[in-house]
Amino acid sequence: LRVFVVRLGHRHIRDQRTTTHLFLTARAFGADGIIYFGQRDKELEVRIKEFTNVWGGPFEVKYGNGVIEFFREWQENGGEIVHLTMYGLLIQNVIEEIRNSNVDKLIVVGGSKVPSFVYNFADWNVAVTSQPHSEISALSVFLHELFEGQELLKTYRNAKLDIVPQTKGKKVVNKHA
Amino acid sequence: LRVFVVRLGHRHIRDQRTTTHLFLTARAFGADGIIYFGQRDKELEVRIKEFTNVWGGPFEVKYGNGVIEFFREWQENGGEIVHLTMYGLLIQNVIEEIRNSNVDKLIVVGGSKVPSFVYNFADWNVAVTSQPHSEISALSVFLHELFEGQELLKTYRNAKLDIVPQTKGKKVVNKHA
Repeated sequence: LRVFVVRLGHRHIRDQRTTTHLFLTARAFGADGIIYFGQRDKELEVRIKEFTNVWGGPFEVKYGNGVIEFFREWQENGGEIVHLTMYGLLIQNVIEEIRNSNVDKLIVVGGSKVPSFVYNFADWNVAVTSQPHSEISALSVFLHELFEGQELLKTYRNAKLDIVPQTKGKKVVNKHA
Repeated sequence: LRVFVVRLGHRHIRDQRTTTHLFLTARAFGADGIIYFGQRDKELEVRIKEFTNVWGGPFEVKYGNGVIEFFREWQENGGEIVHLTMYGLLIQNVIEEIRNSNVDKLIVVGGSKVPSFVYNFADWNVAVTSQPHSEISALSVFLHELFEGQELLKTYRNAKLDIVPQTKGKKVVNKHA
């Protein structure tokens, strides 16, 4: 089972920080990679690759062109699409059904304006609360529920740095030192 | 049991979007309010109050002066402090102990540079994974675990708008119409 996050409508510079948070969240909570649409942002791609170099992988970042074709092809290949939106069905009511459907998943996270075809393509429109908050928290809690907390145990390959959990302070091990 | 989120080192303009996401996340995942330190940002306060007016409350936003005095007083009044940091103990190993300690909690979320006194004041330094990601996802997953998913059932008082979960599309009810 592979899980990829889709970021729609990325805007260079304006969204740099929130998209970086979103990509790192996808990586830290067990997604295999991210495909983003909107404006291409090579700085962002480089930054995420640097994170993966230092903290381990694998984690893919790809720029996509043509969302509709991409969604269509994904579903034709047997994959499913989950769209995170505050207007969707409540996560607590649908997460079990989503977990039980054991095929590859795209988790789609909108930008400010999500075109209506996204709602229609989605196999599930899912609300992580019906309240306004953040696509970053929606994604993290969704993945945490999808993987039932098992993502917290994930280990990463070829990490250069490793943190050793501490009661107080910081302990970082440089594995190549 | 009351739970407040503390944001350290807010920077006006630069952090506006991420701090807004953080505040809305605190509200949507069951915190009673937020106290922020760093640069005062009245626009941010107004924006959060507008959200609470539209989507319901209660949810408090306060600007704090003097973190050390604030932490000291909180603990003297019997409250506890949880500091979210990638260097801390893993959430899966400490969340039960934190839940069982049934007193008011501050959940502290750093900015880019967290002074070492924060680690020392904290009753728990907690890592939501030892990987770099986002204070927004750390906060949401922490609160989701602290409240054991019950925060998803929370209702808000005096909301003007209400979303009715849908399979496709959007349904918003204006309660004053």
